[in-house]
Parts: sequence; C-alpha cells; structure tokens
Amino acid sequence: MSVTDEYLANNRRYAEQFDGPLPLPPARHVAVVACMDARLNVYGILGLAEGEAHVIRNAGGVVTDDEIRSLAISQRLLGTREIILIHHTDCGMLTFTDDAFKQSIQDETGIKPPWSAEAFSDLAVDVRQSIARIKASPFVPHTDQVRGFVFDVATGLLDEVV
Amino acid sequence: MSVTDEYLANNRRYAEQFDGPLPLPPARHVAVVACMDARLNVYGILGLAEGEAHVIRNAGGVVTDDEIRSLAISQRLLGTREIILIHHTDCGMLTFTDDAFKQSIQDETGIKPPWSAEAFSDLAVDVRQSIARIKASPFVPHTDQVRGFVFDVATGLLDEVV
Repeated sequence: MSVTDEYLANNRRYAEQFDGPLPLPPARHVAVVACMDARLNVYGILGLAEGEAHVIRNAGGVVTDDEIRSLAISQRLLGTREIILIHHTDCGMLTFTDDAFKQSIQDETGIKPPWSAEAFSDLAVDVRQSIARIKASPFVPHTDQVRGFVFDVATGLLDEVV
Repeated sequence: MSVTDEYLANNRRYAEQFDGPLPLPPARHVAVVACMDARLNVYGILGLAEGEAHVIRNAGGVVTDDEIRSLAISQRLLGTREIILIHHTDCGMLTFTDDAFKQSIQDETGIKPPWSAEAFSDLAVDVRQSIARIKASPFVPHTDQVRGFVFDVATGLLDEVV
C-alpha cells in the first residue's frame, strides 16, 4: 500500500465527522504565504480554523509570479486584506545555491531550468525581499498589512522580521 | 487588533505544547499540491502529521513553473517520491476567465499581468492537465506515483480523477 493510499483511508475517517460546506471567501480575510516544509503545520502554528484564510505554500515561502497571481486572486476576487509571510529555521533553501542546483539538473538532464531556484542565505533578508516583492507588484492592491515571520522549528514560535 | 495579531496569540499557545525539532526531510516522502482555498485543511483532510509531507499550495492547486521548482527541490534534495494533487468543488477558479480577470486588472492599473491566471472550467480536466504538466517536466524525476483528486467541500471526501 502506498502512502497515498494510507492518506486516503485517513480521509474517509475525516469525512465521517465533516461538517460542510463553508462559504468560499476566507472568513478572516487573511492570506498566508509559507514554506512547503513538512514541519510547518500552518493550521496549528496560527490556530487557523477551516474557512478562515487562504494558504499559499512553496519551496522557501518565497514570492514569485505564481504567488503574485494567487495573492491577486485572493485579494481582488475573494476579499482578503492581510498577508502573513512565514519562513523558518533549518530551511532547505539555506543549504544550496541556485547555480549549483541548476547545474546539477543540467548535468543530469541536459537542460538548465529557466527559473530561479530561489535559494537564499539569510532568512530575515529573504522575508524582507518577499515583502518588498509584494509591495512592488502592481497587481496586489492591499499591501498596508503585510507582515513577515521566521518560524522556529525547535520552539514552535513565530519571530517577526522588522 | 488585527487578525494577524490574534493568530500570533494563538501561536504562543501552540508553542507551549510544541515538541521539536523534527528532521528536515519529509518522513513519508510525499509532496502535496493543493488549492489555497480556506476550506482545505490539508492536515485534516489527509491526516498528515507534522514532519511527514511537503505541502505546496496556490490559487487552483495548479502546476506552473513555481510548482515545478518546488517539486524539483522536494524530490531532488529532500527525497519525496509520491505526489498528491488536490483540486476541490466550488473552486473560485471556476468563476472567472483569464481574459476577463486580466482585463479588469489592466483597466484598474494600466498593466496587463504577464502571467496566466490559470482559471479553468472543469475540475477533472485541470487535474489531468496538472498531472500531465508534472510528467512532461524534465526537472521532476519521479513521476510514476502522481495521483490527482477533487475534494468535495460538502462531504469532506476526496474523489480520485482517473
């Protein structure tokens, strides 16, 4: 049995106690952008309940065109107003460089990825860059409540980047 | 007090019972790609525990360059092997077209976004396209265990797209 099949069995138990449907627009008008890291249970970390906030995640919790697309849809079509960015300690993105990662892919496949791998060497600097990318975008209309944090995978605490 | 501040108060309570740190690589070797929708608590839906799986999310749960970047990092650097894609009923992406959304942004800001909004009109067709995009990518090495589902926001159940 694959892990996917185990998770599908979990889903059937989840559905037995499920109480839906909730409305489509996020009830608390918040969008979260966080790293995909397996240790970041965003629902636990923030105490989010179902239906409250959009959750956008990728390698690093960085802001590229696709996160701008998601935030534009979130704010313009579904009414969110606050943005919470979450990076975290012990992040995989601190362990390699764009050049080395892309070269290793080119060595194996013959093709260099056309995208940046978005590796970074300093968590706070990258949180600030993510905030700056959001504020610089003409497509995200509400940027007066954008705050960034580093989640400590040892303590469970969010530390705000100022 | 902003909603963000309320969530930070939740975080302090979360940290009081936090037991970390867990290892960096996902213990179950799974990556999930899901819609950002507020009603999709991926941890609940799949019964995921902290540390088990990467979670990648965006508007629609679609696969663009940024999801390929995240999946490439997930598989090549952190050892995941299975991919679970999750779209859902009552999705916002079913309610607009790329052309109309981008035109509305251009009307307001004077600039048409250079990206596709990734709207779709059929959930199963888009799940199949997402699987096809992953399998077509030269940068995601392990694609023999990629399965796609539609989450029913009324029942809580995942329905596999075949």
